[in-house]
Amino acid sequence: MTTGNDPVVTSYAKAPTRTITAGGVTYAYRELGPPTGVPVVFFVHLAATLDNWDPRIIDHIAKNHHVIAFDNRGVGASTGTLPDSVEAMADDAVTFIEALGLDKVDIFSFSLGGMIAQALVLEHPELVRRLILTGTGPAGGKNIDKVARTTYYDMLRAALARSDPKEFLFFNRNVTGKRAARAFVQRLDERTTDRDAPIKVKAFRTQLKAIKKWGRSTPADLSKITQPTLIANGDNDRMVPSILSEDLHRRIDKSELVIYPDSGHGGIFQYHEEFAPTAAEFLDR
Amino acid sequence: MTTGNDPVVTSYAKAPTRTITAGGVTYAYRELGPPTGVPVVFFVHLAATLDNWDPRIIDHIAKNHHVIAFDNRGVGASTGTLPDSVEAMADDAVTFIEALGLDKVDIFSFSLGGMIAQALVLEHPELVRRLILTGTGPAGGKNIDKVARTTYYDMLRAALARSDPKEFLFFNRNVTGKRAARAFVQRLDERTTDRDAPIKVKAFRTQLKAIKKWGRSTPADLSKITQPTLIANGDNDRMVPSILSEDLHRRIDKSELVIYPDSGHGGIFQYHEEFAPTAAEFLDR
Repeated sequence: MTTGNDPVVTSYAKAPTRTITAGGVTYAYRELGPPTGVPVVFFVHLAATLDNWDPRIIDHIAKNHHVIAFDNRGVGASTGTLPDSVEAMADDAVTFIEALGLDKVDIFSFSLGGMIAQALVLEHPELVRRLILTGTGPAGGKNIDKVARTTYYDMLRAALARSDPKEFLFFNRNVTGKRAARAFVQRLDERTTDRDAPIKVKAFRTQLKAIKKWGRSTPADLSKITQPTLIANGDNDRMVPSILSEDLHRRIDKSELVIYPDSGHGGIFQYHEEFAPTAAEFLDR
Repeated sequence: MTTGNDPVVTSYAKAPTRTITAGGVTYAYRELGPPTGVPVVFFVHLAATLDNWDPRIIDHIAKNHHVIAFDNRGVGASTGTLPDSVEAMADDAVTFIEALGLDKVDIFSFSLGGMIAQALVLEHPELVRRLILTGTGPAGGKNIDKVARTTYYDMLRAALARSDPKEFLFFNRNVTGKRAARAFVQRLDERTTDRDAPIKVKAFRTQLKAIKKWGRSTPADLSKITQPTLIANGDNDRMVPSILSEDLHRRIDKSELVIYPDSGHGGIFQYHEEFAPTAAEFLDR
């Protein structure tokens, strides 16, 4: 952890990768922003590592918040074997958070990260102050179990087009979407040194299995989530259908919903100029 | 076709894309080199388009030869629907060659292109003067029917590593191979304008189906190939096993074999400095 004596890192691209070991797992993480107040822990998406956070969002939030991004067990540079359920991934996230000595955090989550965040807050409500759920859906949410098929198909399309699969999976294939996709992928390359290890094929497949299981599991009682919650997505999400964001909003009492037009799963990245201040303002309250 | 009055194109990266229509299909092609002598027609690999030829090899051969690269029916910028057998692809290649008014060509082929070339020369021996078969194998060749599995797995690995699948499929994953892979992929980007359309998912899957069928078909009588034939591959080809190059060499009477050490399916690209002169010298004879 940074202390008051370290210089404050203000750019995610420059945040050094640190590690902490707990429960037999060495977790890789990066932190930035002023080391005061309730930290915001970032829960990342399927196939993603520390290198997958949009610097425009994470840097903006880090202006006034202590931000921590991490690789969960068995992902990227973190050691151990990824478990095959969202709930077990949430347990690992708790192990990481507690290892840092934290007893209260905000959570910023995207996609699979949002599923893990929901599982975590239901199991450990005392640990979470505020919750941001983006591009995600509830347990039992319709079509979540089809994520693997969509993902494999778009990985194939992307390989043949020599593009990043996220350009297909996260954005509409119209002029606006393609431009936003290219810009997003380029932003992820702003960090040029000390980059993370890519996820391994086996861990990726385990994530897909866990997502499928989540999509087919019994709905949870989301009225138990009493934390202020910000929900956001694009209006045309092919991975986690946008309607599931509305569903989350209906079922989580103190929630707010933002749906961006003409955008897909990566709506918050396409609309980062609007969304980053919205998220920061929500956390500032 | 170029004529003696056109300026000679000496760089594949600068060769304009042309089209010619025959049998209801508009074929996209590029040509370069002096428009004299027997032309060398290039038959490209699985998933590939006009943009997949290594400029170091094609430019070298074009110094003294009229070189023609084309997209077969249903691939890249060529119209029509790709047929699901190597033999039918060979028929389409003949349609293209005859549409150009050619009655004798040399063939330079790689991988799937080499399978099509074998089918073509057996069906139309009169059309071919000299034959180059690289990274390829005969009908019924062991493990050719496993190409799809290897290809999909490596496309997945590549997507997660944000690399080009060819870096995994064509090269060894040691220091030498990784360096050669990166250099090869970068050479394919030397052409910056007028690039080809990527192959469509459906056509790619049809190619995989045709390759599987080729791997499981009855061996042809390769002793009928009387053309001088140059066979080349790396010594560790994971897609079309290197031993199949030796098999081709044993069964084609007037053939020569070159196997490059410490290299895979893309051995000729890794060793382009040795192979380009070898191929040019073979065609010059």
